[in-house]
Amino acid sequence: MGRAVTLLSGGMDSATCLAIALETGNECYALSFDYGQRHDIELQAARRIAERMGVLQHRTLKIDLGQLGGSALTDKSIDVPEQPGEGIPATYVPARNTIFLSYALAWAEVLDADSIYLGINAIDYSGYPDCRPEYLRAFQLMAKLATRRCVEGGNLEIRAPLLELGKAEIIRRGMDLGVDFSMTISCYQADEQGAACGRCDACRLRRAGFESAGVVDPTQYQG
Amino acid sequence: MGRAVTLLSGGMDSATCLAIALETGNECYALSFDYGQRHDIELQAARRIAERMGVLQHRTLKIDLGQLGGSALTDKSIDVPEQPGEGIPATYVPARNTIFLSYALAWAEVLDADSIYLGINAIDYSGYPDCRPEYLRAFQLMAKLATRRCVEGGNLEIRAPLLELGKAEIIRRGMDLGVDFSMTISCYQADEQGAACGRCDACRLRRAGFESAGVVDPTQYQG
Repeated sequence: MGRAVTLLSGGMDSATCLAIALETGNECYALSFDYGQRHDIELQAARRIAERMGVLQHRTLKIDLGQLGGSALTDKSIDVPEQPGEGIPATYVPARNTIFLSYALAWAEVLDADSIYLGINAIDYSGYPDCRPEYLRAFQLMAKLATRRCVEGGNLEIRAPLLELGKAEIIRRGMDLGVDFSMTISCYQADEQGAACGRCDACRLRRAGFESAGVVDPTQYQG
Repeated sequence: MGRAVTLLSGGMDSATCLAIALETGNECYALSFDYGQRHDIELQAARRIAERMGVLQHRTLKIDLGQLGGSALTDKSIDVPEQPGEGIPATYVPARNTIFLSYALAWAEVLDADSIYLGINAIDYSGYPDCRPEYLRAFQLMAKLATRRCVEGGNLEIRAPLLELGKAEIIRRGMDLGVDFSMTISCYQADEQGAACGRCDACRLRRAGFESAGVVDPTQYQG
C-alpha cells in the first residue's frame, strides 16, 4: 500500500484524480491552495470532497500569488475571457503548477509518501504550458534530484493519470469510481452559491465533456 | 541590460550573489521568504541589504512551511545540530529551494525578467540535495517548459554564480564588490540582536571561510 499526496482544487479533474489514487490502494493526503483565486467556493468544494472521499488529512495552504499578479485568476482588474482565443489565455497563472507541486513535494517528504497525484490533462485543456507531458517529465526529473528522500534511495513518483484523457473520458472514469460531480466546481467565476457562469474556458470544456460523454450535466448554472 | 529576480536570504552568499547580479548590469528585484524560520533577524538583514544595494523592489512573501514541518529550521521541537554529522543534516528543509525558485519563476514571468539569481553553493555547504549543480540543471530544464515566457520564445536563465566557489572565494569576491558582510546573518539560531551562536553548521562554514580568506571576521558572536 502506497502513500500519496493529491492536489485537490475542488474541480472535476482533481476529484477524479483523487478517486483514482484511492482506487489504486493509496493512503491519500489532499492538498489545496488558497492562492488569491477569485472565489473560495472551490476551496469549500475541495473540503467537502476530501471529507466525502475519506482522505486521511486535508490541508489548505494560504499562499499569496495575488501579490505577484499577472493572471486573470489572481488579479480582479484582468477580465476572465469569455470567448475562445488564440494562444495561452489570461487565466494562466505564472508558475502555478510548479509552485503547487513544490509544496506537494515538501509534504510528500515529510509524510514519507511515495507518490504525488495531480489532475492535469493536456487534451481538452486551456493550453497552459505547465499542463503538458514534457513539463511533467521535467518536473519529475528535478524532483528526484531535489529531495533527501530520493537522494537516499527512496522513490517519489509524480502521477497524472488524466494527462492523456479527454474530458468525456474523465467524466466516465469518475462516474465509474463514484465521483459525485455535483460537488465539484470548475467555473473561474462561480457565484457565491457555486453556480457556474457557463461562458469561461473551464465551463466550456466541462459542458462539452458532459455532452460528449452523453451524461446529464449536474452543474448548476447562473441565472 | 537584463532584468533579474534575486533570491535574498540575508546571509553572506545571497548578498554576494546580488552584488554579482548588479555588477553584471542587471536591474535587480529581490525576493525573500518569511517561511517560519527560527528568527526574523535574517529578514531584517535582507531588507537592509536590499535597500543599501539599491534593488528596484524587494518583496518578502509569507509562506507557511512550518505547517508542513520536517526541519530543525521550521520546527522548534527539532534541535539545530551543533556538531558536524553524517549525511544531510536536520536543518534541511524539504523542497525549500524548489519552492523558493518556483516563486521566483512566477515573479520573473510577471516582471518580464530574463534571469533568476540565487546564492547556492556546493563546495563549503551542508550537503543539501537542492544545492547541487545537477539539481539546478534539472530545475532550469523544467522552468523552460513550465512558463509562457519560454514557450513563447523568451529566455529565463537560472544563475548560481557561487555554485562552484568555496566560502573563502565567496568572501573575497564579495569584498571586491563592496559587500558589507557585517550586515549579513548566516547563523541558524541568531539571537534577537543578530549575534551568531558560532556552533551551528552555517556559523562553522562562515567562520572557516573568513579564516581561510585571511580577512577579519565582522560577525558578532553571542556571549
